[in-house]
Parts: sequence; structure tokens; C-alpha cells
Amino acid sequence: MLATILYAPGDVRVEQRDEPTIQRPTDAIIRLSATCICGSDLWPFRGANPVTSPMAMGHEYCGVVVEVGSEVKTVRPGQFVVGSFVLSDNTCPHCRYGFHSSCEQREFMTGGQAELARVPLADGTLIATAEMPPDDLIPSLLAASDVLGTGWYAADAARVQPGSTVVVVGDGAVGLMGVLAAKQLGADRIIAMSRHKSRQDLALDYGATDIVAERGEAGVARVRDLTRRIGADAVLECVGTQESMQTAIDCARPGSMIGYVGVPHGVTFDGQALFFAQRGMIGGPAPVRRFLPQLMDLILTRQINPGRVFDLELPLRDAAEGYRAMDERRAIKTLLRL
Amino acid sequence: MLATILYAPGDVRVEQRDEPTIQRPTDAIIRLSATCICGSDLWPFRGANPVTSPMAMGHEYCGVVVEVGSEVKTVRPGQFVVGSFVLSDNTCPHCRYGFHSSCEQREFMTGGQAELARVPLADGTLIATAEMPPDDLIPSLLAASDVLGTGWYAADAARVQPGSTVVVVGDGAVGLMGVLAAKQLGADRIIAMSRHKSRQDLALDYGATDIVAERGEAGVARVRDLTRRIGADAVLECVGTQESMQTAIDCARPGSMIGYVGVPHGVTFDGQALFFAQRGMIGGPAPVRRFLPQLMDLILTRQINPGRVFDLELPLRDAAEGYRAMDERRAIKTLLRL
Repeated sequence: MLATILYAPGDVRVEQRDEPTIQRPTDAIIRLSATCICGSDLWPFRGANPVTSPMAMGHEYCGVVVEVGSEVKTVRPGQFVVGSFVLSDNTCPHCRYGFHSSCEQREFMTGGQAELARVPLADGTLIATAEMPPDDLIPSLLAASDVLGTGWYAADAARVQPGSTVVVVGDGAVGLMGVLAAKQLGADRIIAMSRHKSRQDLALDYGATDIVAERGEAGVARVRDLTRRIGADAVLECVGTQESMQTAIDCARPGSMIGYVGVPHGVTFDGQALFFAQRGMIGGPAPVRRFLPQLMDLILTRQINPGRVFDLELPLRDAAEGYRAMDERRAIKTLLRL
Repeated sequence: MLATILYAPGDVRVEQRDEPTIQRPTDAIIRLSATCICGSDLWPFRGANPVTSPMAMGHEYCGVVVEVGSEVKTVRPGQFVVGSFVLSDNTCPHCRYGFHSSCEQREFMTGGQAELARVPLADGTLIATAEMPPDDLIPSLLAASDVLGTGWYAADAARVQPGSTVVVVGDGAVGLMGVLAAKQLGADRIIAMSRHKSRQDLALDYGATDIVAERGEAGVARVRDLTRRIGADAVLECVGTQESMQTAIDCARPGSMIGYVGVPHGVTFDGQALFFAQRGMIGGPAPVRRFLPQLMDLILTRQINPGRVFDLELPLRDAAEGYRAMDERRAIKTLLRL
């Protein structure tokens, strides 16, 4: 089968690999309906994370079950399933607390940019639809696997409520999904920080009420003007750099929460500065599994259309071009067709 | 009048000073009924904060109003009042949001370890009792001004709820008040980290169900054993050092909140470690004013007795000995009689 392998920064190849097999009785094998490239895949592609050995890329996935291990009870071959990029058992205390991404058995999905993939902890991780979904919903269902679930978690972590004024830092795919989530959670005002026209347009379509194109201190000043110098009730940090994190802190009002989902790279916080700023923070890999049933329902009933975040579609064999297009910001997010 | 002045680390003197006067029409002058020494007063006393000029010490206070400025409407001479250590207008957006400690007009109280004190922003800051409280309640009412309000905020910030398992890091006066607050907020299990017998005893009296005497990694291991390796639902950090903050993070379960009220000294957080730990945090100077009406009611109806945290009483003129006793851990907290 075809699979996407990263050999070194900038060197990603689609090549023939052995098909995955059941390795543990809790595994499932799925045939991907579509897969995609994540902003976080760019960290190793750009050399920001080390690549010590060839990496089987891809952690966003949906598709049809082809085989299950002997202990799998909740999904069966022939069903269409969506799963989180974090594999979890859905039974441990952390899962029951809603933090599946800290599951006692947590693993991170790999090898999803391929024709077939092994999904460990299938019972805890996968959710099947009642019937085969129409083709045009596949991109949105795929998005639920990570990018939508992550944007949703950012909004949930930032405690967006009906009437909230929200700032979304970052106009990547996760930030755009954060806008969508904030809208669904009832935010009154959604300020999207973005300086790219196509992303601004999509943010506005997803419910942003204001666009701030400035960055850093100028961006913060603009947000403070827009919020009558109070700051936002909730901030979604969807980048992961020192500057973006500082922007998030400075845009938030005292006593508010910042949900940060951009994996921090080279970020440190000064305890005393954070103390006197009196901003709350919670981040981490998104517990997508908590939100997945609700998100799949919103998609299947066509209440949301997160799939619009894919602005480039390529066949799987051209995955390398998909990486380059995202790296060079020619694409927000690349869908890989199978 | 007598007032307490810090001239240099270790050099605190009680000496004659001019009586305070109304400087702004929103000021009040109060005659202290009692005052006390705060754990945070030890930072400059120990040289951990610089002392660049003589400092009029004391920010915890209660007493009788003797004079008010022309714009003060809610308190009048003769009334007994309690105020927060943070002065706030109680009308700005941050106050209305419950974060009086980030008030647009925020000032920090000074000069409270004296016979008389000036309280700026009197209308927003002071709360009068209906009648003169009995003498035996003065220590508890004084405690509401900061140490109780700060412990309460830690529990509120950590989102202690009925049934919660709570860890309190730090057995200083604030930590002990955190135990009291967690109990009042309905915590099922309260694990107090303390290695001093007298503090352990008071913690148990205030509602602690478990004592962990170990520190650092050993303390964390003990807490994890006590919580079936899950971690606590809520953690109150009441120290402010790198070690205590790390202990708080390591004792908390993923998805929980840490309320940190020990002013961080030399503390930094690594963004990526905090991200993957998936712990939430909010700290800052306590918005005591938010809680003050409720706390005063609990005290006046004798439902709580925070005043027991004072285990040393001295006349104001012996304040220096009070500082030394706390510095040398001979006393948890010193009440200064007037």
C-alpha cells in the first residue's frame, strides 16, 4: 500500500509499504476514506522537531473498518468510523473526567497518511456512524479527527460562553476551527487575528465579527481598542510561539482563561508576570474523543461545515506537494484523496 | 502615632509617625482594631524583595472609621470596617467581573501596621458591619482582609467543588486558610502538605483529611498513592517557589486547575511541559473584595474561625519580634494588638 514517510526535514516520500496488521487484540485496521496534513506535521518537516528515524506520518483519519482484533466490541468491519488523533481507552479515570488526551493508555496515532492504518485501542477511540456518510461530508468528518476537535477544545478550555467576547490568535486551520467553535458555543463577538485575505474570509464565514491584521504589540493594542480596553473574556491560542502566547495573555482580561492548543515551541512563562497578569491557562493535546459524538452529529446534520478548511486537495501520492504548499502558506490545509 | 517601618532587610522598627490625613476625597482614615504580619511581609524582611527606601508596613486591617473624604458615601465615622489588602473601586469592568485585584484603579494597601491608617478608594474597598463586633471576633475579621480571602481565592481559582479531592501545597497561614476554604466549599478529601506538627494539627482542625509530611518528589508520590495515582481534582499552591509550584503541577490530575496564590519568586514554567501535563492554572493577588461579604457573614455567625491561625499575639510596639518569630517559623502568623 502507499504510505507517507518523512525521512528528514523537507524530505517526505510516498512509497510502498507493507499493509498494517492486527498486533494487539484491541486494534482495528481501517481503509482510509481520506486523510490530511496537520500543521503539527510541519514541525518535523521544518526541522523544528528532530527526525531521528523515518516517520510514518499522519494522525487524522476516517474510513471503513476492514478488520478488528479479538477483543474489539464496539466497531466491526464495514462500518465507517472517525477517531481522535489521540488513542484512548475511554474507561480510565482521565477519560471519564473528559481528558482522553491524558488517558492512562494514551498513544498518539501514526501512519494515517496511507491507504490503510492500524488504530490501537479501537473500542475507546473509534466512533462509527449509523450508515455510510455521503461523500461530500468526508472532509468534515475527517476534520473532526483533530483540527476541528482541537479548535473546539481551545474554545472549551477558554470557557467560551453565550455572549462571550473571544479572541482567536492564529489563522491556521486550528484557529479557523476555533472561530467556528466559538460561534457554536454562543460567542457574541469573535476577533480573529489574521493577516491573510483568504483566511480572513474563511474566518468571517465561520463567524468572526472582527479581523485584526496587526501582530504583536500592535495587534494587542487593536484588540484592546475593540474591547474598550478591558480585554477578551476568552482567548484561543492556536500557534505555539513565544510571541503568540504573549499576544494571547495580553489580549485576555484578568480572570479569563486562555485555551492554548498550539504545541509550544521554545515558550517559557515568567511565574511572577503571569501571577500579576492574573490570566488563567489550560492547554494540551485536545481530548477530541470527548467532543467527537457531538461534532459528528453537527456534521452529519449539516449544521457545521468544517471541511471548508481544506483549500487544497491532492491524491495521496502527491503528499509531498501538500507539505510544501502548507509550509509555504500556499494552502491552509491539504486533504489527501485516496 | 506608632507605625511599623522596614528600613532594610531584618531592620523593622516601630516608631512615632505623623497621623495619616485625607489626601483624596475618596479616602477614609481608620483606627485599627488589630493588625498583623503577612507571610509576604517576610519577602522584603528577608531581602528577597529589594528595600530601596523605608517602607510603611502592613496591608491587613480592620477597625473603626474616624474620618472620610467628601466623596465617600458607603461608610461613615464610627462604623467598624474590614477591607481588602487590594484597594479597588468596585465599579470598573474588572471589579464587576469579580477580579477586584485587577481593578483599573488598583492600589495595594500600605501602612496598616500602625494605630491609624489611610484607606484609599474607601467606598469600593471597605465593608461596614451592622454593629460593633464582639472583641473575640476581631482576629477572624482581620484575617478576612487578606489571609483568609487569599486562601479562599486559591480554592475558588482551583474550582473546588462538593466532593472534590483537594491538595494544599504550603502550610503557612494562607495554606491553612485554603484548607478551611476547601472544607467550606464542600471538598470530600483535603490533603494538606505540612511537616510542622502545630500546623498539621490546625490543618486537621480546619478540615484536612490527610497530612503529607514529605516534600518534592516524595511528597508527590505520596499524594499520588492517596489519590489512586489519579492526582487531585484541585490544587492550591500557597508558597511561590519553583519546587512548590512543580509539586502543585505534579499533584494535580490532567484537566484540573491549580489556584496559585504564593507570589512566585524565581519561578518559570516550560510551555511545552505544561502543555503536555495538561494542568490548568490561574493565580494572582486575591480579589478578596469579591468574597468579603460572604466571609464576614460566616465569621459573624461563627460558622468559621479563621482567627485561630494567629498563634502569636504581641502589642504593636513589639512588631519586630513578630517578624522574627515568623521568619524563624516560631509562629504561623502574628497578630499585633493595639
